[in-house]
Amino acid sequence: MKPVLNFTPGPSQLYFTAEDHMRKAFRDGIPSLSHRSKTFESIYKETVEGLKELIGIPEHFTLVFTSSATEVWERIIQNLVENTSHHFVNGAFSKRFYEIALQLNRNSSKHEVQEGQAFAFSDALPVTELIALTHNETSTGVSLPMPFINSIKEQKPGVLVAVDAVSSLPYPEFDFSKIDTLFFSVQKGFGLPAGLGVWIVNNRCLQKATSMLANGISIGSYHNLPTLHAHGLKNQTPETPNVLGIYLLGKVIQDMLRRGIATIRRETDYKAAILYQALEQHPVLKPFVMDKTIQSKTVIVADCGEFTGQLSDYLQSKGLFPGEGYGLFKKQHLRFANFPAHSKEQFELLVDSIEAFKP
Amino acid sequence: MKPVLNFTPGPSQLYFTAEDHMRKAFRDGIPSLSHRSKTFESIYKETVEGLKELIGIPEHFTLVFTSSATEVWERIIQNLVENTSHHFVNGAFSKRFYEIALQLNRNSSKHEVQEGQAFAFSDALPVTELIALTHNETSTGVSLPMPFINSIKEQKPGVLVAVDAVSSLPYPEFDFSKIDTLFFSVQKGFGLPAGLGVWIVNNRCLQKATSMLANGISIGSYHNLPTLHAHGLKNQTPETPNVLGIYLLGKVIQDMLRRGIATIRRETDYKAAILYQALEQHPVLKPFVMDKTIQSKTVIVADCGEFTGQLSDYLQSKGLFPGEGYGLFKKQHLRFANFPAHSKEQFELLVDSIEAFKP
Repeated sequence: MKPVLNFTPGPSQLYFTAEDHMRKAFRDGIPSLSHRSKTFESIYKETVEGLKELIGIPEHFTLVFTSSATEVWERIIQNLVENTSHHFVNGAFSKRFYEIALQLNRNSSKHEVQEGQAFAFSDALPVTELIALTHNETSTGVSLPMPFINSIKEQKPGVLVAVDAVSSLPYPEFDFSKIDTLFFSVQKGFGLPAGLGVWIVNNRCLQKATSMLANGISIGSYHNLPTLHAHGLKNQTPETPNVLGIYLLGKVIQDMLRRGIATIRRETDYKAAILYQALEQHPVLKPFVMDKTIQSKTVIVADCGEFTGQLSDYLQSKGLFPGEGYGLFKKQHLRFANFPAHSKEQFELLVDSIEAFKP
Repeated sequence: MKPVLNFTPGPSQLYFTAEDHMRKAFRDGIPSLSHRSKTFESIYKETVEGLKELIGIPEHFTLVFTSSATEVWERIIQNLVENTSHHFVNGAFSKRFYEIALQLNRNSSKHEVQEGQAFAFSDALPVTELIALTHNETSTGVSLPMPFINSIKEQKPGVLVAVDAVSSLPYPEFDFSKIDTLFFSVQKGFGLPAGLGVWIVNNRCLQKATSMLANGISIGSYHNLPTLHAHGLKNQTPETPNVLGIYLLGKVIQDMLRRGIATIRRETDYKAAILYQALEQHPVLKPFVMDKTIQSKTVIVADCGEFTGQLSDYLQSKGLFPGEGYGLFKKQHLRFANFPAHSKEQFELLVDSIEAFKP
């Protein structure tokens, strides 16, 4: 039987060492480990320090754990926005972040462009407490260019800049002097079972949450930022967390550190380049995102038009599972995750198969 | 080497089939499964239906998944309490539920008794929207008698009754006509890795949340009750959940159904009886909870006084790991979980060892 390669953009293919780490975790009693034990604290510390090294997070940023990136959307609004946030919306996930702000009764605003389009640089940002950016819009494969992300803080040094990096990390290299908070979940670029989010914040975020609390505003309970931070300083969590998830993340990060982030980035670039080239040169397929400056390297969306179902069946018959198009694009797009779990050889097989596809 | 038996009250010893289910999950690609797939929906359905059967949950109750029971504390206050809840507090965990209500700026009240003590039946309950009960106070081993739980609804039919059953389910048999919402997490009685909570609600809870929302009160975002419920009807979750956790819970529930809830309850009673008897008859040890009507069957706390450290070391030398006393009782108590994962033979070994303990 052909091996099944999973190119869905999340939950995605497991990192190739994930299962071995899971087996060792059971052998070592990790699932029964108390989250108040020294062993747990050392697992927590290893995971946090490994992430800081892998992604290049400066010392004055704090990492805490949530149950998902979806939770982080809610916690960011609760803890960092008293009245208003401003959201750059170009697809389903950036829109969801905006909608969560409305559900929490904030007077938030959005700047929306059509799916697949770029945001123009603007010098007319509204007065707001926080600007929310989605680095990689998983629904369409649009990635915000780093100069655009950095331009926000350059124009509005007083505003908090929040970046959703759910389906891009560990690939991108952020300038941490230009952002205040960043977050992701582990079932995409880190190739792990879902059920864990990572929330990275600087001191300005902590100060904002503390000052809102001092003003009598509720910032949530067990997962408010000061509580998460205070426990994090002790390498602990407020609640019994997904201990196994934190353990597995730490182990996969160690594997990625051994492989080297430069290698991971170089391979991601290579795999993206061959897939985009195959789509551009194909007689009936094309990239959905045509503007090269905003083409995502980690979620590559093919506009397959009337051949969508046929290409999907053809790839699946070869053991290659693409992600469906998102929402309205279900019958028109296929999405391909390009994560560290996908080897060069697997991508070459995918690209060869797409090139050979004759409808 | 001696086998290590874990009697800590959570995360506790894994259910004896958990590791096999985890291996099968990896073989079957569960960790990479889309939470929008038919396969996921059938896993969700199997878990929910299995739980309803195991615990005897009536049809008009809905089960939804959160990341922890701690999250459920927050969601109950957000969704079911506009102004005030009333909390029966007799230890650290019932107190934490009360404190979460205060953190969410509710004008909540509490009725507090000392650790290890019973609540008197009272006909003077305050005017409130919700009464919060902790069936099993994990910190001290006090369990509320069913007649006490049922008396709340009998006195105040209009109030919502919320029951924390974190460290007691699946053992207890609740009268669902006397409670409106019930919750637990999987790392205790179900013997699974932490990172999943189960929240059970009736229609009155849904109506309350919907009416608060209609009145412009924020009830949270992705995990507000109407959103959880609407996704639950499709056997889905609003966010990418802990898919593996939901899968494992479903599988362990099937194992428990095959074993039979009556057998599980009978064995729990037997194991509790022999441990309490050993503590009562021991020359230097005694049960912390002396009132038999409130002695927990699932978390049994030994008052070991000055011999705490010595007994703990002695048991550990035999591969039997007790839980430490909680908080102020750390140097005075040892706690023993009595969950379905602990076999009769393991409990007999524990009891024999305690009886043989001569300080």
